[in-house]
Amino acid sequence: MTPQNLQDLYIHQLRDLYSAETQLIDALPKMAEKASDPELRRAFNAHLEETKRQKERLELIFERLGQSPSGQTCQGMKGLIKEANELISEASSLFGSDSPSEVLDAGLITAAQRVEHYEIAGYGSVATFAEMLGLQTDHDLLGQTLSEEKKADEMLTRIAERGINVEAIHA
Amino acid sequence: MTPQNLQDLYIHQLRDLYSAETQLIDALPKMAEKASDPELRRAFNAHLEETKRQKERLELIFERLGQSPSGQTCQGMKGLIKEANELISEASSLFGSDSPSEVLDAGLITAAQRVEHYEIAGYGSVATFAEMLGLQTDHDLLGQTLSEEKKADEMLTRIAERGINVEAIHA
Repeated sequence: MTPQNLQDLYIHQLRDLYSAETQLIDALPKMAEKASDPELRRAFNAHLEETKRQKERLELIFERLGQSPSGQTCQGMKGLIKEANELISEASSLFGSDSPSEVLDAGLITAAQRVEHYEIAGYGSVATFAEMLGLQTDHDLLGQTLSEEKKADEMLTRIAERGINVEAIHA
Repeated sequence: MTPQNLQDLYIHQLRDLYSAETQLIDALPKMAEKASDPELRRAFNAHLEETKRQKERLELIFERLGQSPSGQTCQGMKGLIKEANELISEASSLFGSDSPSEVLDAGLITAAQRVEHYEIAGYGSVATFAEMLGLQTDHDLLGQTLSEEKKADEMLTRIAERGINVEAIHA
């Protein structure tokens, strides 16, 4: 679908985010598995559950719009996940796949924060569009997700600052 | 290069950002060309010049570290630029390549804000790493870029809210 007006662009962007969330649901378990810090692992697992709810929220919006959520691939998220996987495989080849490390944890956090910021930018745009289109319920639902993404980003910063980065210096 | 400690991960991340800036310098002129709103076009052109200086700042950091900035491809930025190009070509096929529109402007802003947020996440990470590694000059240089990226994102939000999105509703 080629966007012809703001409503089309809005749906186009929602489909992009739907694809992004779907890809992320596939990627997060691997990131959790590779995390050695227990709090980081818990954060990834908790964010996986949150991401599933965010995807359902998008499905609800599409249902209200009478549109299908599928049919688009989010190239941005595809690149971000490729980047995370490269980091994991590079680190695995050095440390061995059974030996996660603090450096890998620090790397996983940088990859995850890029993902969060992608979503912050994306949900920020669609929340603004929803408001301008007078879609208040959509705006509230998207705002809820936006706020969760910002909190997830802040939690990753806290975990990084709390100690992983410092430990990684001495790895 | 596979990261073995925080210093390695720091350099790995700097190379990722160097590749990201290089790709962006190639992409921004096309985004400026496709923008119909004069302020948006000026913002893209101004950010192109800023991006060139940010790339030079990274070169200075690499020089100080005695390392080469090249040899890595930023997959994240590659995906983001692919996404922007898809949007441009979809819109061009509808409106004709000589006829930029308000909807395309709104789309270009969403693509550019994803790029800015990628860089905000990336520079946030390396600035933290620089501080932890005791590299104060690097930290200051990277902090300067981080602050510019945040301002660029805020300017895009202002341009979007000021009118492009509203005009796009009626396109």
